[in-house]
Amino acid sequence: MASRKLRPQRRNPATWTSCGVLALWLLASLPLNAQSPLAGWSDTPSREAILRFIDTTVDPTRETFIEPEDRIAVFDNDGTLWAEQPAYFQLLFAVDRARAQLAEDPSLESRSPYREIAADDLGALLAGGHDALFKLVFATHAGRSTEEFRREVLDWLASARHPGSDRPYTKMVYAPMLELLDYLSARGYRNYIVSGGGVAFLRAWSEDVYAIPPERVVGSRMELSYQAGETPLILRGDALAHVNDGPGKPVGIQQIIGRRPVLAVGNSDGDFEMLRWTTTGDGPRLGVLIHHTDGEREWAYDRESSIGRLDRGLDAAPENGWIVVDMKNDWRRVFPD
Amino acid sequence: MASRKLRPQRRNPATWTSCGVLALWLLASLPLNAQSPLAGWSDTPSREAILRFIDTTVDPTRETFIEPEDRIAVFDNDGTLWAEQPAYFQLLFAVDRARAQLAEDPSLESRSPYREIAADDLGALLAGGHDALFKLVFATHAGRSTEEFRREVLDWLASARHPGSDRPYTKMVYAPMLELLDYLSARGYRNYIVSGGGVAFLRAWSEDVYAIPPERVVGSRMELSYQAGETPLILRGDALAHVNDGPGKPVGIQQIIGRRPVLAVGNSDGDFEMLRWTTTGDGPRLGVLIHHTDGEREWAYDRESSIGRLDRGLDAAPENGWIVVDMKNDWRRVFPD
Repeated sequence: MASRKLRPQRRNPATWTSCGVLALWLLASLPLNAQSPLAGWSDTPSREAILRFIDTTVDPTRETFIEPEDRIAVFDNDGTLWAEQPAYFQLLFAVDRARAQLAEDPSLESRSPYREIAADDLGALLAGGHDALFKLVFATHAGRSTEEFRREVLDWLASARHPGSDRPYTKMVYAPMLELLDYLSARGYRNYIVSGGGVAFLRAWSEDVYAIPPERVVGSRMELSYQAGETPLILRGDALAHVNDGPGKPVGIQQIIGRRPVLAVGNSDGDFEMLRWTTTGDGPRLGVLIHHTDGEREWAYDRESSIGRLDRGLDAAPENGWIVVDMKNDWRRVFPD
Repeated sequence: MASRKLRPQRRNPATWTSCGVLALWLLASLPLNAQSPLAGWSDTPSREAILRFIDTTVDPTRETFIEPEDRIAVFDNDGTLWAEQPAYFQLLFAVDRARAQLAEDPSLESRSPYREIAADDLGALLAGGHDALFKLVFATHAGRSTEEFRREVLDWLASARHPGSDRPYTKMVYAPMLELLDYLSARGYRNYIVSGGGVAFLRAWSEDVYAIPPERVVGSRMELSYQAGETPLILRGDALAHVNDGPGKPVGIQQIIGRRPVLAVGNSDGDFEMLRWTTTGDGPRLGVLIHHTDGEREWAYDRESSIGRLDRGLDAAPENGWIVVDMKNDWRRVFPD
């Protein structure tokens, strides 16, 4: 036996070929194992169901195959792609902008919403309900050109820090969702943001942060107007043209995309109609709800929350076949390193 | 001399190589000559300027290089991509639809716009101005689901014929413009339609006819609403949400695309602001006006026309550096065979 082991053997060509095939197989499978898809997701039924949907809809040998042009995936933003606590980040942007305006022109302090901002009394501002918030948004978002507004958003993102984590807001995105966006893109899906937030706010950074270009962002919109002249401008008016929330989401999708999505991901009841519209179409469809269950690594909230309330959606998920992602158990990590 | 000619010669290897190189060169250049770019365009300064713009903006060694993500080209539709005489084709669609509605329900005849349609009195209808036309459009375009409307448009296109040429409307497109769309696509440009016509009307066929998918169509829009239920629907309302003409075009571009185009093609003063917005941005820009100068192969009209009037644009073209395409002299052919 010993001599047999030590004796060099002449391998026949078939053996060499087998070895080559094996080596190629090893080489091909190594990177796959090293970077298993959706590595930030735990090995749970949620991850498996999402991967199965994607893999079976891009396989041309299957009946569930979806033509590349129809591979439209829509994602809510606040609470789905990035965090939304302790308040929608766009609202925190508006507060910071109002503070900056006050610093430049202290006389603003005599009127709302600057009075409440100067007194650092956000409670009083929020007590004013939607009207007070709209006043704040219009004061900080309207009456400037699209390009000016874009620069203001980018300047803010470059310096502002999230009050709880002290991270830049663009690092408050969910790492497992970035992986999902990547995985879909690599398989010919076109990812869209469909957010209740303002479209111009989102477009300023969606390409850098999510690899989602401006033309694939659907959001709430202000009235715009064209200003002729030597250097034409597009000006942001002070009226809302479209509120992209609840039933406004399927409407926004139809207005901007003009196709019915096949995959929708949201986290709150504001996404209910988007998920219904997506998953009641013909052929394979997938609806996903991100359930905020992780009070340690993120925030735990659902049925009673004033921000990102998820109540109707949790009740409706089983009968609609929607996947409810349990952040605590389904995600290995929440934020990028 | 004669014997020398007849005597078979032994070619040395260098000669063979030269022959091979020559043959390869001939083979390689033949398809190029056979299918020179924009073959339906005459060899004039217009064609040359358009090709030069495109070729120099996709060449990464040049200062005029435009990044792929910024290669947005916008095209008006009526009079730019397809004909618009004797009336906008969408209006002829509305008339045909109203006739079909009348055939199904003759009692409609008692009221406008069906009264005028029943009497075949389009003059009376047109005399009613915008209000009468809107009545016709709303009667035939509103109060149905987006999917129902799409089928109505496709059914009409499948059977209707252009009154002058007896061709299907989808064969009233301009062959040189189809070539330009192709040429741009092949060079990484993303083509958008930016039309005063209805977005839902255009989206029904833009992909088949122009290879421009629904999400790259910007047009006038009706209000939409989401109807919940077992089978959710998106319903077309009876109010205009956006009129995508004149200053409405840059606004529509900003709303839907969220980027400033680098190339714009139009044919009427309704495209003036779109061309200004496009060509006053930084970096290389191109504006093109299609001038209807060919009364034999198409129609000749400009400053005095009620449809597709081009007056301000002709005056402003030189100082703006816009190319004015002379259909008669710049195009070898107008319609596809």
